[in-house]
Amino acid sequence: MTNIKLNPKFLKGFLKETQLEDFLKKSVEAKKLLHNKEGAGSDFLGWVELPNQIQGKQIKELQETAEKIAGNSEYLVVVGIGGSYLGSRAIIEANSSSFDVVSSNKTKVLYAGHHIDPDYHNELLDFLEDKEFSINVISKSGTTTEPAIAFRTLMSLAKKKYGESNLKNRIYSTTDSKKGALKKLSDEFGLKTFVIPDDIGGRFSVLTPVGLLPIAAAGIDIQKLVDGARTMASYLKNENDPYANTSCLYAAYRNFFYSVGHKLEILVNYNPKMHYFTEWWKQLYGESEGKGKKGIFPAGVDLTTDLHSLGQYIQDGERIIFETVLSIVSPMKNLLIEEVQGDPDGLNFLAGKTLSYITNQAMKGTMLAHFEGGVPCIELQVPQINSEICGELIYFFEYACGISGYLLGVNPFDQPGVEDYKNNMFALLGKKGYESKKIEVENKLKQLD
Amino acid sequence: MTNIKLNPKFLKGFLKETQLEDFLKKSVEAKKLLHNKEGAGSDFLGWVELPNQIQGKQIKELQETAEKIAGNSEYLVVVGIGGSYLGSRAIIEANSSSFDVVSSNKTKVLYAGHHIDPDYHNELLDFLEDKEFSINVISKSGTTTEPAIAFRTLMSLAKKKYGESNLKNRIYSTTDSKKGALKKLSDEFGLKTFVIPDDIGGRFSVLTPVGLLPIAAAGIDIQKLVDGARTMASYLKNENDPYANTSCLYAAYRNFFYSVGHKLEILVNYNPKMHYFTEWWKQLYGESEGKGKKGIFPAGVDLTTDLHSLGQYIQDGERIIFETVLSIVSPMKNLLIEEVQGDPDGLNFLAGKTLSYITNQAMKGTMLAHFEGGVPCIELQVPQINSEICGELIYFFEYACGISGYLLGVNPFDQPGVEDYKNNMFALLGKKGYESKKIEVENKLKQLD
Repeated sequence: MTNIKLNPKFLKGFLKETQLEDFLKKSVEAKKLLHNKEGAGSDFLGWVELPNQIQGKQIKELQETAEKIAGNSEYLVVVGIGGSYLGSRAIIEANSSSFDVVSSNKTKVLYAGHHIDPDYHNELLDFLEDKEFSINVISKSGTTTEPAIAFRTLMSLAKKKYGESNLKNRIYSTTDSKKGALKKLSDEFGLKTFVIPDDIGGRFSVLTPVGLLPIAAAGIDIQKLVDGARTMASYLKNENDPYANTSCLYAAYRNFFYSVGHKLEILVNYNPKMHYFTEWWKQLYGESEGKGKKGIFPAGVDLTTDLHSLGQYIQDGERIIFETVLSIVSPMKNLLIEEVQGDPDGLNFLAGKTLSYITNQAMKGTMLAHFEGGVPCIELQVPQINSEICGELIYFFEYACGISGYLLGVNPFDQPGVEDYKNNMFALLGKKGYESKKIEVENKLKQLD
Repeated sequence: MTNIKLNPKFLKGFLKETQLEDFLKKSVEAKKLLHNKEGAGSDFLGWVELPNQIQGKQIKELQETAEKIAGNSEYLVVVGIGGSYLGSRAIIEANSSSFDVVSSNKTKVLYAGHHIDPDYHNELLDFLEDKEFSINVISKSGTTTEPAIAFRTLMSLAKKKYGESNLKNRIYSTTDSKKGALKKLSDEFGLKTFVIPDDIGGRFSVLTPVGLLPIAAAGIDIQKLVDGARTMASYLKNENDPYANTSCLYAAYRNFFYSVGHKLEILVNYNPKMHYFTEWWKQLYGESEGKGKKGIFPAGVDLTTDLHSLGQYIQDGERIIFETVLSIVSPMKNLLIEEVQGDPDGLNFLAGKTLSYITNQAMKGTMLAHFEGGVPCIELQVPQINSEICGELIYFFEYACGISGYLLGVNPFDQPGVEDYKNNMFALLGKKGYESKKIEVENKLKQLD
């Protein structure tokens, strides 16, 4: 059995059971398409069977590399954008202390190449100058602008600091098995190289070396992560009752709510460590479904923090929202409210209670308030955060995403719209091959002046 | 003159000038309401004249306190939620190095009381145990659940570490001038206390001691911040041509786009340091306008990072979005792309170019791509980030928010919906005075089971 349950309690009254039936039926059909590879984008379904295919020796190789990194580096810089860093960052932050980057003795993971900001890159280079560091550069092609720029500057620093012959002890690449700029460079410098499979897109790649190497380097048990994903994969594959198949049910509810005007989904957590998990989820769903002028807009809120920010809107703004709550019950370690003499802040009524008890009452109270305010609330019950349950969550959301995209009638595995800004940018930057596009873009910009 | 310009270039074709006229006329009327205090929520307009009222001696007192903190503390823990921390965090992160928290010799600002997560609070207490720290607790009443809980645990640590008689050298409170639990406790322990004015709501309070003390403690020039706000305030007050009054124009565009179905605004930055500025903006607009079942949903995206996450959706998803871009041109310090022999990553065509040049081409290319994809794009041109320009930006957005809320027909200065979750939570927690509410809430939850 899996650890994640969908509680439909706070959906009552928003729909009749009959309204869901068609979506449920279609979700079971969509599920078949994932396994039979008969749906749109079927060249990119490598993630479906991935948890069953990862072998002990692959895990071991990743762990050995992680140990090598830990042996000579205080910092590992992950160079990647989008799916090349969001998955690992999600799992690392979910399973680390909030102050690890300041105080831990473990290898700390930093990120670069996820934008082109000069201040950040200058600050990173200055910071690393007197630190021991390694680099994991992650790119299928090696020519994606943001990571390529960051890698060029970091490689230059590493060369100066460690010498060219030592780069193989400092730089690890995760890239195509055969072709591409990064593969070629890796071979030239004799870098240890991990493979991004051809049939797995970036946002589905966290359980490939793309995610697993940084996660292992951060000291997190990747075997358990994969075990969790495998448990979930096996459950979802074999369960054909859509009320019991959590991914089918989630996909059906999402598409029903979208069909009646709830165009915005907020993924809600009550654990600050889950902030980047939400960022990963935003890419997964936004990039998979936002196409053909349709799709649910994925937004994230961290509660109770944002109850004092977006809470007012969620409670009483435009009624276009539905909510998916990760209700995680148990913390790693609890904290008791102490009794204070004189009760200066009026909190003594909570003395002897734990912070997680209070969070749980806040969560129940909030779900009820939103429910009564007109926001349907899908509760995903999760017993706690650990690497195994993170594996379950990842696979659950990936599988539901595939189904949900098919229900919506899109190819959930492509991202054609991402090229538009790149083409304009390359044209404006004068890249070879974009000569006529350059004239076109510059003319368009001029006409708008 | 002010440093912020609104460029309507990427709005062409989305509206005729005549369609904006009515909104513009109303925005000038709404502006008068702000100064005459004749609109809804006029008890909370203290922020309108605030930049002109802040005196040199107040700035000096805040700076002296900041120096005292710097003198004995590596860390300042800001305890507050919503408007009590988002404004200071926005300005501090915009004006600090990304690695300050790990490496700077300056006082580093940490945050607590913005949620009730036990793991975070345990980790914070463990982290602080062997560090020198001070606390700035920020709460009008002193009984808001999240900050009150965090303050209780931090106060307990401070007592153990420094002794009760030394708390006055370690704890600073920002609270009501006369009443409330925190004011009483501050008097009892002889704490240095700063005042939250009665006529300024949390989300408009960054230029009061709520924001100014933490910002000063982080080593940022608060005089320049206030100067920037004053420049903007004077400009906006005196400029009655809505095409020249940037706030009127922004408010008019927002309401026009909302009226034709663009229910979601994304605030876009190309500078990772501006991430928390966007968080501050989300509260400002979400809490001011999301009421009476209406309002634009405010979302944030950090680019180019999120072009590889939400970019696909923005380019080609459901057409309910409009975009406001903070196009900030100059970094603090630039970085050049170096030529590399053999051009392994194909980036040599950029050799000799700066990262900010590349960012600017990415920005232009992206705005054009979104424009052509059906996303109207309001460009706010900002020459660079510094404390003075941050002051301008803050006042610009506050003033536009007041106008925009009046255009929408809501009271932009209340937040009644925030009480709903609190009432349910207090009932479930068994707070005194909530006895009948407790029965009601528990019954409702039972009926949903």
